[in-house]
Amino acid sequence: MADLRLIVAGAGGRMGRTLVKAIAESRGFALAGALEDPRSPLIGWDSGTLAGTAENGVKLVGDASALIEAADGIVDFTTPRATVGFAALAARSGKFHITGTTGLSAQDEAKLREAAASTVIVRSGNMSLGVNLLAALTRRVAKTLDAAFDIEILEMHHNQKVDAPSGTALMLGRAAAEGRGVDFDTHLAGGREGHTGARKAGDIGFAVLRGGTVVGEHSVIFAGPFERLELVHKAEDRMIFARGALHAAAWARGRKPGFYTMMDVLGLNDF
Amino acid sequence: MADLRLIVAGAGGRMGRTLVKAIAESRGFALAGALEDPRSPLIGWDSGTLAGTAENGVKLVGDASALIEAADGIVDFTTPRATVGFAALAARSGKFHITGTTGLSAQDEAKLREAAASTVIVRSGNMSLGVNLLAALTRRVAKTLDAAFDIEILEMHHNQKVDAPSGTALMLGRAAAEGRGVDFDTHLAGGREGHTGARKAGDIGFAVLRGGTVVGEHSVIFAGPFERLELVHKAEDRMIFARGALHAAAWARGRKPGFYTMMDVLGLNDF
Amino acid sequence: MADLRLIVAGAGGRMGRTLVKAIAESRGFALAGALEDPRSPLIGWDSGTLAGTAENGVKLVGDASALIEAADGIVDFTTPRATVGFAALAARSGKFHITGTTGLSAQDEAKLREAAASTVIVRSGNMSLGVNLLAALTRRVAKTLDAAFDIEILEMHHNQKVDAPSGTALMLGRAAAEGRGVDFDTHLAGGREGHTGARKAGDIGFAVLRGGTVVGEHSVIFAGPFERLELVHKAEDRMIFARGALHAAAWARGRKPGFYTMMDVLGLNDF
Amino acid sequence: MADLRLIVAGAGGRMGRTLVKAIAESRGFALAGALEDPRSPLIGWDSGTLAGTAENGVKLVGDASALIEAADGIVDFTTPRATVGFAALAARSGKFHITGTTGLSAQDEAKLREAAASTVIVRSGNMSLGVNLLAALTRRVAKTLDAAFDIEILEMHHNQKVDAPSGTALMLGRAAAEGRGVDFDTHLAGGREGHTGARKAGDIGFAVLRGGTVVGEHSVIFAGPFERLELVHKAEDRMIFARGALHAAAWARGRKPGFYTMMDVLGLNDF
Repeated sequence: MADLRLIVAGAGGRMGRTLVKAIAESRGFALAGALEDPRSPLIGWDSGTLAGTAENGVKLVGDASALIEAADGIVDFTTPRATVGFAALAARSGKFHITGTTGLSAQDEAKLREAAASTVIVRSGNMSLGVNLLAALTRRVAKTLDAAFDIEILEMHHNQKVDAPSGTALMLGRAAAEGRGVDFDTHLAGGREGHTGARKAGDIGFAVLRGGTVVGEHSVIFAGPFERLELVHKAEDRMIFARGALHAAAWARGRKPGFYTMMDVLGLNDF
Repeated sequence: MADLRLIVAGAGGRMGRTLVKAIAESRGFALAGALEDPRSPLIGWDSGTLAGTAENGVKLVGDASALIEAADGIVDFTTPRATVGFAALAARSGKFHITGTTGLSAQDEAKLREAAASTVIVRSGNMSLGVNLLAALTRRVAKTLDAAFDIEILEMHHNQKVDAPSGTALMLGRAAAEGRGVDFDTHLAGGREGHTGARKAGDIGFAVLRGGTVVGEHSVIFAGPFERLELVHKAEDRMIFARGALHAAAWARGRKPGFYTMMDVLGLNDF
Repeated sequence: MADLRLIVAGAGGRMGRTLVKAIAESRGFALAGALEDPRSPLIGWDSGTLAGTAENGVKLVGDASALIEAADGIVDFTTPRATVGFAALAARSGKFHITGTTGLSAQDEAKLREAAASTVIVRSGNMSLGVNLLAALTRRVAKTLDAAFDIEILEMHHNQKVDAPSGTALMLGRAAAEGRGVDFDTHLAGGREGHTGARKAGDIGFAVLRGGTVVGEHSVIFAGPFERLELVHKAEDRMIFARGALHAAAWARGRKPGFYTMMDVLGLNDF
Repeated sequence: MADLRLIVAGAGGRMGRTLVKAIAESRGFALAGALEDPRSPLIGWDSGTLAGTAENGVKLVGDASALIEAADGIVDFTTPRATVGFAALAARSGKFHITGTTGLSAQDEAKLREAAASTVIVRSGNMSLGVNLLAALTRRVAKTLDAAFDIEILEMHHNQKVDAPSGTALMLGRAAAEGRGVDFDTHLAGGREGHTGARKAGDIGFAVLRGGTVVGEHSVIFAGPFERLELVHKAEDRMIFARGALHAAAWARGRKPGFYTMMDVLGLNDF
């Protein structure tokens, strides 16, 4: 099969560079373009050099329109605003769109779903195999254990992360609520401080650590009478997110239009 | 429904006392007898007092034959030899037998299976809900993740434990091997020391910690490229094993003869 | 040496019963009295029976005045209000007072210090050897590592705990601040939720888990560039707090009046 | 001060490339040469390109003799045999030698000590700040806690590691033995498997995990009656070892001849 030709958006950023590197290191993929904010001083730089791999001749450009025809799809881990634009571009040109952007509003997501009427969009707040498997396990265990087991979610990330809990922690919380058959929003209990009173039965608690250069660690703790079951994922390198995105891209090729998640890609929906 | 009348074997030992306490604290169960080795100095003591609960009038005796008719079943966490005897007694009298004894030889187990032709026998090396759920999860994850994920099993127990790895760790290893579709015995890798060479792909590794008063902790680690998924169980008190045994006893009442495990009791075989 | 004669306050409560049991199991200590709230239905009960040990003939009473003369000291893990009263009683009668009560206000503590002018008072939010050693280590490591290492404190307790973070976690935070030479109150960062922005350098972060029957676990995490150092304490049973209190009582005998902590008792101040 | 001019040995290997990268990213250091086995196909390659940084014009060569005069010192994480040679070269030329090579025999180490009579040699099995601090803490805690606390050491590394336990784990074990005042070799207990009997009081136990791409994690566990104190180090990236080596190089400049460790460099000997 011909190589899958991907445009990487945000190619000057941390995840963009990792994507460029992952494409260079993986069989079956080719870099069809490297986008960056047109105002970025990195415009014109070689994307391979920026990624710490060999020079590849694909320079950072500020506009996707000249590139899109020759590509199979776009991969982006950028900002909600940019992502909404890429979804529209993908829809117009019939290319797939793989996005790991976090912080999308309900409106942003609605626009992605609209675009997904005419093309394949895969969106996930965390593209790693392990995390998505963790979510599937969480749903399953929450369904199996009764209310005597309190559910707590702990996450740790590097000191530059600006939101809490992480999107992935919230995804795990939703999986727990789904498994237990309760509404997530009314059972979320985060940011405990001061005189909190005893834990409310049924709560899904969150605790957040920030420090150093931690890529990402998530634990789902089921704490029952005299025993605990803990499901833990540790990301050592953000390369796992890039690999997951490539996995999604390979899966997306030839798929019928729709709005998908990594749970679809990995076949974990019926886990 | 009438209370389930249970004979506790080894009622002077640590697990036996915990069983007596669990029966006293649980609804629907009654203590029908308390057995101990006839040579034990504890013969004649009140089993409730020994268990740290109220005096209950059930004294430790050395022989089950006078008690068995008035009971529904026997629960024991004793020695392989004693357990084989209880299984035979259960078979003769048509009572169920719940046993958490560890260290059974293949012959011992064959005798239990023989007895199970005429009565209900539930045997498990670890009767806790959490650990059996952990085993089911381990099998499932081992089936889902490919060989790029190395499987390692870690356990910690108190400093009086005499065998390694624990029976539960071996059970988890077998669950992993089953999930992955490989033979357990030829893939077990324990006791690493000295010049071991690189890890053999496909191995199921074991590591053992001993110290203090730790009741029992088990981790199954799936270590892949740049990410790890860990499934962890922590027992805080051996009461969880006693509760599991009572759970099994309630399940056993009226069941047809057979040799069962906690996976049957908890319905985790198709997890 | 004669046995140390201790009055246990709150002898009908969870920690009180554990203290009664610890006294029964330890050499060199005798139970001189068992106090409980005069309105408690447990008044008149045998304290040994309540503690799950042998009947000891020491019944729960509502008033300490008849007992204090024959005792060497009072041990209490009760409420701030009761503790202030015991400190005054100890001061009047020249007996020592060991207290593990949490939630004292600044005024409460001032009253204890006042009482400590005339007798020995040992107060600590956590009486275990391990936790106090952890605090000493935390101070030391915080002094050694520079600001490139972010300090985070994580704690988990059972689902009945009503305040967050735990008094012990706050004690660890103060030890970290002291080691680093910064003011604790202005560097405490707890209850992260929502758009928090990047971590503020120098913050001492807190995260809180609540669930099941967890006795108490505390971690102090020093997260630097590409490496983490974690100091962890796990309490398996609240017996460690009772043992610590007895240790303090033995240390207090014959000591000159003053307000002390477990750091004094254990000689960890210069660690 | 002029940049410190360092020769990196094994510049085509994993740690060598990391050292080249660390030098490029750190202020005050310059790359004075890049050595590799003369038979390596990488001879002649640009060391910057290999390290994933900018081309730097320093090509891999097979012989150090032409480079040594213009350098301040040699840094190597190579093989015992090569390391002994570099120590001799350093001694002859009066340059310092920083080495993180593991697996040195007693004879190898004797040769290093001999060379250290005429130059500065810093050798450590683990050059990270955190691990050396962990060793100092281990010694200290082992000195403070009595024999009721069992000492266990756990480590996990990637699946390519060929020896067990890691050199760092053994270093931690020696620190524990030193703190407790016992002989390490007769108290080491590793590779538990089968009928081990109860834990021998005073043993220092080891457990080993291997899997995936784990850079290196070490835990020292003090397991006592009903409580545990754990000291844990997690390396996220081997960059910390390269940084430690540069830290040692800066410390070595102008120091008088001698055989030193990272404990000397970091001033942790009297911790």
